[in-house]
Amino acid sequence: MTEDTRYRAADLVAFAQALFCGAAMDRDKAAVVAELLVEGDLFGHDTHGLQLAAPYLAELKAGRMAGTGAPEVVSDNGTALTWDGRRLPGVWLTAQAVDLAVERATDRGLAAVTIRRSHHIACLATFLERATNRGCVVVLASSDPNNASVAPFGGTAAVMTPNPIAAGIPTDGEPMLIDISSSITTNSMTYRLHKEGKRFPGPWLLDAQGRPSDDPAVAFTDPPGTILPLGGLDSGHKGYGLGLLVEALTQGLSGFGRAEPAEGWGASVFVLALDPAAFGGREAFARQTGWLADACRDSPPVDGGPPVRLPGERALARKRAALRDGLGLRAGIMDALRPWAEKLEVPVPNAMPSV
Amino acid sequence: MTEDTRYRAADLVAFAQALFCGAAMDRDKAAVVAELLVEGDLFGHDTHGLQLAAPYLAELKAGRMAGTGAPEVVSDNGTALTWDGRRLPGVWLTAQAVDLAVERATDRGLAAVTIRRSHHIACLATFLERATNRGCVVVLASSDPNNASVAPFGGTAAVMTPNPIAAGIPTDGEPMLIDISSSITTNSMTYRLHKEGKRFPGPWLLDAQGRPSDDPAVAFTDPPGTILPLGGLDSGHKGYGLGLLVEALTQGLSGFGRAEPAEGWGASVFVLALDPAAFGGREAFARQTGWLADACRDSPPVDGGPPVRLPGERALARKRAALRDGLGLRAGIMDALRPWAEKLEVPVPNAMPSV
Repeated sequence: MTEDTRYRAADLVAFAQALFCGAAMDRDKAAVVAELLVEGDLFGHDTHGLQLAAPYLAELKAGRMAGTGAPEVVSDNGTALTWDGRRLPGVWLTAQAVDLAVERATDRGLAAVTIRRSHHIACLATFLERATNRGCVVVLASSDPNNASVAPFGGTAAVMTPNPIAAGIPTDGEPMLIDISSSITTNSMTYRLHKEGKRFPGPWLLDAQGRPSDDPAVAFTDPPGTILPLGGLDSGHKGYGLGLLVEALTQGLSGFGRAEPAEGWGASVFVLALDPAAFGGREAFARQTGWLADACRDSPPVDGGPPVRLPGERALARKRAALRDGLGLRAGIMDALRPWAEKLEVPVPNAMPSV
Repeated sequence: MTEDTRYRAADLVAFAQALFCGAAMDRDKAAVVAELLVEGDLFGHDTHGLQLAAPYLAELKAGRMAGTGAPEVVSDNGTALTWDGRRLPGVWLTAQAVDLAVERATDRGLAAVTIRRSHHIACLATFLERATNRGCVVVLASSDPNNASVAPFGGTAAVMTPNPIAAGIPTDGEPMLIDISSSITTNSMTYRLHKEGKRFPGPWLLDAQGRPSDDPAVAFTDPPGTILPLGGLDSGHKGYGLGLLVEALTQGLSGFGRAEPAEGWGASVFVLALDPAAFGGREAFARQTGWLADACRDSPPVDGGPPVRLPGERALARKRAALRDGLGLRAGIMDALRPWAEKLEVPVPNAMPSV
C-alpha cells in the first residue's frame, strides 16, 4: 500500500508548505501545518498525514479554512484561556495552543487552552513532543461539532465524533505518546476499509437498525449506521463516557459546539499542560514513569507475540528510520497533490535515488 | 442478592461513622467516609460502598490506615498542589482535595491536587457532585501503586491497577457522572464473580500464560492471570494508554509510586477542577452539555433495548428511590459489620418496617 518511491521528509515539508502558501495560507502557518502533517506520516499515522493536504487545499480554496490572521482571545486569566479559532488551520492553532499552555504551565504549574471554531487538527500524537521536550505533561482532546458518527451506547443515531484523547508523558528516556479515540475505530479508518472493500476484525459498528456489523459499508447507508464507542458491544458504556467528557472539555468549555448550527469540517480543542516541577518534582516524576515504562517492557509477551511496547515507541522508531532512509507515502497521496502542484506552480519533490 | 431488609440511609451513615470513630478515626473524617460509602450503595455501586467498611476497620485496627491528623502539603503554588496523604482515609482525603480544587478553580479557572500515600478512595462517582453542584467540571483519577492486576497490552505480567477515571459534568439539568476503569473490569468484580462461581460475558482476562479467558478464577492462580485493558483483545492498546496516563497523573505527578517499596492497600490520586466561567462561560457550557444530553436521550435505542441513558442517570434515580424507600444492602455486608458493632459497642441500626 506504500509506494516504493521514497522522499526526503524535508522535501515533502517544503512541498506542502509551498502548496499551502500558494493557496494563500500565511507562511508561518503553512510551515507548521506542513511540518506536522509530514510528522503524521513519519509516525506511520498515514490517515492523518499528507493525505489531508489535498482536502485542506480544497477547504482553503473554498474559503472554508481561513489562511490568514490570528485567533480571537475570548478569555485569558493566565491559566485558563479560550480562543475563537476563526476557522484557521487547526494544526497551526493547536501547535500554538500547546506551546502557550506549556509556557504558562512552566510558570503556574498548569494551564488549559480551549479552542472553538478551529479547522481540522489532524494527528494529535504529533503535538505531544512540543510539551514533553520541555518536561511537561500534556493532555489534548478534540471533537468536531459539525459531524457525528458515534452513537451514545445503546442508541442508533450518531451524536458524537470519535473524540480522540492524546497525552504526552515525559519519562527518564523516550516520552510516552498516547493517542486514542473514544470510539472503537475512527472515521478515516472506516472510510479507508470501505473503499478497499475490507472488514473490521469484529462487530465494531452498528447498522442503522442497531444490528452489530463488521462491515464498514453500514456507515455509508442512508440513514447511516454508527461506529461503536471504545469497549464495543460489551463495555461500550466506558467509551461513551470518555466521548462525553471530550465533548464537555472541547465544546463545553470553549462555549461553542453542537448547540450551534454546523459550520463545516472543523474542530473544538482542549489542551492541558502540567509541569511536574509544581507538583512532586520533575525528577520524581521521571523516576515513576521511567520505572513504569521498564515494567511494561519487562512484562513477558503473550505466547508468540512481540515484546510489549510503550505508546509512541513504534512511531518514534518509524520516524528515525524514515528520516534516515526516506519516507514512503501511501499510494494515492502524491497523485492527489499533483493537480494542485500544477495549478499552483509548485515543483513536485524528487524521489530519493533507490538503494 | 440484595437483602430484603431496608435501612434508612441516615441510620447507616450514623452506624458507619460510629464504627469508624470506635476504631479511633477522627470524628470529621469518620463522618465523610461513612457518608460517601453509603452514597456508593445509594448509587448502586455496591462493590464500593459499605462493603468496604469492614476492611477499612481492619486496616485502622492494624495501623495500616491512619485515623487521625492531616495530610502533609508537599507543594502548593495556588493552582498546583501535592499532598502526602500519610495513609489517612482516602475517601476523606479525596473529598477534601475535590473541595479545595473547586475553591481554587473558582478563583483561578482551574486547579489540580495530587495525593501520594492515600489509603483506598472507594467509589469515584460519589465525589463528583461536590464539584458539579458548584458549577465546576471535575476530573478524578486514581491508581494503587501497591497492587497490580492489569498487564500492559500484549504482556502477561500485571503492572497496573484498573486505574479508574471519573468526571463530573454540569448540564442545564442533572449532572453527568462518569466513572469508568481503564481496564475492562475491576478487581472487586473479578473477586465477586470468582466467589460466586460465575463467568464474565467474554474473554476479559488472560491466564498466566496469556490465553484469553472468561473465568475470573484465572486471576487467582499462582502465578496469577491478568485483567485485560479496556478495549479487550482487539482494542486493548487504548485502555492500556489510558491506564498509563492515570499512572502518570497520580503517581508521576505526586512523585511517589511503584518505584518505591509497596506500603499496603492504598491509592495515588489526581483531582482536576475547571470552572467554565474562566473559559467560554458557565451559561455557554451548560447550553452545550444540555444539548448533548438531550441528543443522547433522543437517540433511538437499539431494537428491544431500553432508552439511552446518560452516565449517572441511573445512579441518581436509584439514590432518590433509596432515600424515599430505604436502602437494601447486598447480602453479607451487615454480617461482616456485626462483629465490629459488638466489639466496638455500637448499636446495629434497625431495619425499616416492611411495607
